[in-house]
Amino acid sequence: MSLVGVGDVSKRILLGRKLRSAQLGETLLPKRIALPVFASDALSSVAYAPDEVFIMLAIAGASAYVWSWKIAIAVAIVMAAVIASYRQTVHAYPSGGGDYEVATVNLGRTAGITVGSALLVDYVLTVAVSISSGSQYAAAAIPALQGHEATVALVLVALLTAVNLRGIRESGSFFAVPTYLFMFAILGMCAYGFIELLGGNLPDAESASLEITPQPGWEEPLTTVGLLFLLARAFSSGCAALTGVEAISNGVPAFKRPKSKNAATTLLLLGLIAITMMVSVIVLAKQIGLKYVDPHELDRLTLNGQPLPEGYDQHTVIAQIADAVFHDFSPGFYFVVTVTGVILVLAANTAFNGFPVLGSILAKDGLAPRALGARGDRLAYSNGIVFLAVMAMVLIWAFDAETTKLIQLYIVGVFVSFNLSQLGMIRHWTRALETERDQAERRRIQRSRVINAIGLSFTSVVLVIVLVTKFLHGAWITILAMGFFFVMMKSIRKHYEGVELELAADETDKALPTRVHAIVLVSKLHKPTLRALAFAKATRPNALEGVYVSVDDRETARLLEEWDERNTGVPLKVLHSPYREIVKPIVEYASAIRRANPRGVVAVYIPEYVVGRWWEQLLHNQTALRLKGRLLFTPGVMVTSVPYQLRSSELALEREERDEHRVHAGDLRRGRVRQDNNRQYPR
Amino acid sequence: MSLVGVGDVSKRILLGRKLRSAQLGETLLPKRIALPVFASDALSSVAYAPDEVFIMLAIAGASAYVWSWKIAIAVAIVMAAVIASYRQTVHAYPSGGGDYEVATVNLGRTAGITVGSALLVDYVLTVAVSISSGSQYAAAAIPALQGHEATVALVLVALLTAVNLRGIRESGSFFAVPTYLFMFAILGMCAYGFIELLGGNLPDAESASLEITPQPGWEEPLTTVGLLFLLARAFSSGCAALTGVEAISNGVPAFKRPKSKNAATTLLLLGLIAITMMVSVIVLAKQIGLKYVDPHELDRLTLNGQPLPEGYDQHTVIAQIADAVFHDFSPGFYFVVTVTGVILVLAANTAFNGFPVLGSILAKDGLAPRALGARGDRLAYSNGIVFLAVMAMVLIWAFDAETTKLIQLYIVGVFVSFNLSQLGMIRHWTRALETERDQAERRRIQRSRVINAIGLSFTSVVLVIVLVTKFLHGAWITILAMGFFFVMMKSIRKHYEGVELELAADETDKALPTRVHAIVLVSKLHKPTLRALAFAKATRPNALEGVYVSVDDRETARLLEEWDERNTGVPLKVLHSPYREIVKPIVEYASAIRRANPRGVVAVYIPEYVVGRWWEQLLHNQTALRLKGRLLFTPGVMVTSVPYQLRSSELALEREERDEHRVHAGDLRRGRVRQDNNRQYPR
Repeated sequence: MSLVGVGDVSKRILLGRKLRSAQLGETLLPKRIALPVFASDALSSVAYAPDEVFIMLAIAGASAYVWSWKIAIAVAIVMAAVIASYRQTVHAYPSGGGDYEVATVNLGRTAGITVGSALLVDYVLTVAVSISSGSQYAAAAIPALQGHEATVALVLVALLTAVNLRGIRESGSFFAVPTYLFMFAILGMCAYGFIELLGGNLPDAESASLEITPQPGWEEPLTTVGLLFLLARAFSSGCAALTGVEAISNGVPAFKRPKSKNAATTLLLLGLIAITMMVSVIVLAKQIGLKYVDPHELDRLTLNGQPLPEGYDQHTVIAQIADAVFHDFSPGFYFVVTVTGVILVLAANTAFNGFPVLGSILAKDGLAPRALGARGDRLAYSNGIVFLAVMAMVLIWAFDAETTKLIQLYIVGVFVSFNLSQLGMIRHWTRALETERDQAERRRIQRSRVINAIGLSFTSVVLVIVLVTKFLHGAWITILAMGFFFVMMKSIRKHYEGVELELAADETDKALPTRVHAIVLVSKLHKPTLRALAFAKATRPNALEGVYVSVDDRETARLLEEWDERNTGVPLKVLHSPYREIVKPIVEYASAIRRANPRGVVAVYIPEYVVGRWWEQLLHNQTALRLKGRLLFTPGVMVTSVPYQLRSSELALEREERDEHRVHAGDLRRGRVRQDNNRQYPR
Repeated sequence: MSLVGVGDVSKRILLGRKLRSAQLGETLLPKRIALPVFASDALSSVAYAPDEVFIMLAIAGASAYVWSWKIAIAVAIVMAAVIASYRQTVHAYPSGGGDYEVATVNLGRTAGITVGSALLVDYVLTVAVSISSGSQYAAAAIPALQGHEATVALVLVALLTAVNLRGIRESGSFFAVPTYLFMFAILGMCAYGFIELLGGNLPDAESASLEITPQPGWEEPLTTVGLLFLLARAFSSGCAALTGVEAISNGVPAFKRPKSKNAATTLLLLGLIAITMMVSVIVLAKQIGLKYVDPHELDRLTLNGQPLPEGYDQHTVIAQIADAVFHDFSPGFYFVVTVTGVILVLAANTAFNGFPVLGSILAKDGLAPRALGARGDRLAYSNGIVFLAVMAMVLIWAFDAETTKLIQLYIVGVFVSFNLSQLGMIRHWTRALETERDQAERRRIQRSRVINAIGLSFTSVVLVIVLVTKFLHGAWITILAMGFFFVMMKSIRKHYEGVELELAADETDKALPTRVHAIVLVSKLHKPTLRALAFAKATRPNALEGVYVSVDDRETARLLEEWDERNTGVPLKVLHSPYREIVKPIVEYASAIRRANPRGVVAVYIPEYVVGRWWEQLLHNQTALRLKGRLLFTPGVMVTSVPYQLRSSELALEREERDEHRVHAGDLRRGRVRQDNNRQYPR
């Protein structure tokens, strides 16, 4: 960038370092960093999924808790199947398009758009659910926050939004430290709890002595249908634990080589850790005699037949386990609760990272405004983040930050994309079999297809269960929102296709204009005007004249005098405008020239001076802007801005460059970081 | 405007009438229309000025009311002097610049800016005071609104704002009907009241039987100093009746010829009516035994020594007179109160009309953003209206729509501009005397100078009284606001002057660039690109190439193939951008070309397609916009937009034209109306 003018050298030297150009580069993640980068969303669900299982079972009273570990096993099996399926995906589609790409390539545009809208809705819900749950943990650690969970959640979303708008330079350790601490905290707590259990000195939960009154109509003995329905609801709520496992399939390009293999291994590791955590938490919760009901129905909890005192606050499952396990070591309790809260915020942040990435993928396919597709379009990028934040805040506000209610909306979208993705993978392998002749390779493909088929059978059953059990409890909202996004994406694509058709080149466009009539707009005879005149002259048009809009006779006379003195060699045309209109006379004059010579082009040169500060921009060039906007509608006219950089323009240039080099949330998981910050991870 | 494309003819015929081009024209006002157009502000003050006189006198109890008609006479004398002075101004400055022009021309820039800031503040206060008083009248007519005056006022301001943003086509009758009705109502009421008085059957006011407890420290007997101070306060509040008399001096160009003479006659008429109304109202109010105190101190009113019942609502002076005079004819009461409310709203509307006019005058002198100076800059115009409305609403909200409090802020600004204007006029006549030799003319000038000197002596005394009596009661806020506007205008002018200096042409700017290197940005090979190529070719640059930013290898290969097939005769340069950045590679390439040939110019041609709907604009050209913004900072580069109009662009063109032809508030008083609506008033 050579912006060094005479007299500016000293200033440029001073500013030199600040402006040092930084190039985007690639930093690939080793598995031990990739795991935490992609795991926070999937692992954090252990903070709320077990709670939902216990809430559902509690509908029939504490006796139904005998089913808790069986449900945990069922969820674990589904999760294992899904993980195995995605291991196939990362091998077959290493480009990072994830479910959207799989569905689009194998099932067609409509399936792709469906997955796209499911993912959009899911990002919103990830923020809403994670932050709502996080605010519950904050209330568990800081009693003063109890009863203000919704406010805490809204403030947290606002903070995340601000941080992401500002742009954070993510590094591996930004994710690694809290995620590994969280694994250490939960697995450590469970291990210690099981040791206490084996030693027979595992204390009871604070809620162990409570009784749960079943909901009306759900008293023992349950009918078989009733029991099945209850278990189905508990199971589908437990499946919230599966959210986020697809993240790695979108991030394959960020892995170290061999990318697919490393991604598959990391996915396996993630699955094992997630399953272990979830099953351990549920089993341990059952062992300490936890009693947990819908926070709206705390009156169903009784102590020796008496209602609980006013203001009883039901702590989350993990908080109650931590309280019991670390009964005589309160730092342990605070450590578990704190890192769980942090991991939930981190999980919400992954949505802020993933949302713009999804936007750019959709934009590339003409399903979202194209501006989202270009890196560095700050405006589009910011709009996306604000949109996500506002939607999430509306949900949090509408549902009063109650995780239990929000979770009813959550997993529909996830399982829609799971299903379409699995179906797409089966189609993918079937196609591959059509051409593959190598027997060993065919066997490998067939095995992959079986894995995806098993995955599909599980996820389709879960989707049906989820739809049946949750539709009226809130899933309809998700489906409505998905439908909205679906229609919007279809319309955007239709619009782009229509424009493309209208713009398609044909043979009639070859005729060359014969003549260029150039006019230079003159407001005063100053440097920008002289430069515009010089530039216009350099293009050697067939006709060249200055054009001045006269609104004041005295000023006009003065300008004409100056013009003659200057001896520019260019005639000056004066357009009279008694009502101080500037734009209209010029547009009409340009149109008249064009009408007189329909095969010619009118080139309008507008001198513009470039200032730096925002308020300076308010004070200048407003007319030029309006004129340019207006001339775009006049056929046969081209509009040339001839800029003249004032000294203060350097401020704006610096600001532009700072903006360009700003880190965008999600860069890390796309494998993009700044070269000047490029620390290669040692092997 | 020739935008008729093939196939569009039928549509154009259908839309033809709607788009009929309308030219701005001049319609001059005869005196009988000019009077109501300019009078509403000045006359409406009779709705609140007498109230303030009685409130101030009531500080010393009802016995001080003996001074009321003497104060009315004093105010009338000042008003007569001011009217006489402005009659000189309309002769000397028929251009409509008013006080601002008089002060700037005769006393210099600083005096002009002072008047300008006083007028800006005054417009805000005109809205706040008139609407607050209007909402009191609304409450008098509709008891349900009592206690909600502030809300009513805020709603009224919001409505006025909406109407003015929309643009109302003002006509003479828009002002004439309510203003003449108001004159008829007030003068008729007073005449009828005096007849009743002469007949000895004028009823008492509803408040006649009340007693007023003096404020502590103001009990009888008053010291002379105390009495003088009290009368000074009452007098300075009564001077609120003078606001708005200067309006005609800003509107001389809208009068029928002979403009100055007609304006002076109208001014005289206005003065006579205003003085008659004000004196009559005050005398009549005294005669019906009205008792009126600060609405915050209603507990100072007693009935037979007993406090008044809760919820006693004190009606305005005019309402009480109407109630007494029309005691057995309630339609008379409602008529007076209604037209008074309407005239107050109309008075507030004059501020909405005058504010943009003042803005454009200030802009012409470089004291406000230049965009305000051009007619038809919708954005600047709207911003001005919204600014005025927000400021007025803040005042109404802060002072709870209490006219009594707002009036303390009001007249400082008016009298600052009165004084500077009179001083300027004296200087004007003194200068005229220096060159004038004709004796008759010299006598005329000397007489004018005496009139303005008398005017100045009165207004300067009033300004001192106002400052002394009101400074602590709120006038300091006005002075602070004036100081703020003063500093802002000074800074804006300083900025414009600095820019002008930096831009001033000197001899070094004559060097012509030697070479034009043209690059045409290519995103696809469609009609807009082909048109841009054709236009660029027509300018016969020294070098011409297409430039394509490659973010995807497959797409690039496809484009290159198409390019070769097309055989455009132009080489295509491919810039690789693995991170999907578009703007940066182009800016760097253009800079590199320029560096290689510092005496040359780089011409960047950007194909743009023009769409019509706002959401279409979101979907297109965002990159072109960013690129153009960014290239402005690159020296030696000029940026040419080559538009390609899509079919939907006609929608936007129509919208633009509708906007252009929209009426702006205040057009009538500037003598500008649409020719197609041009009804010449019959002589």
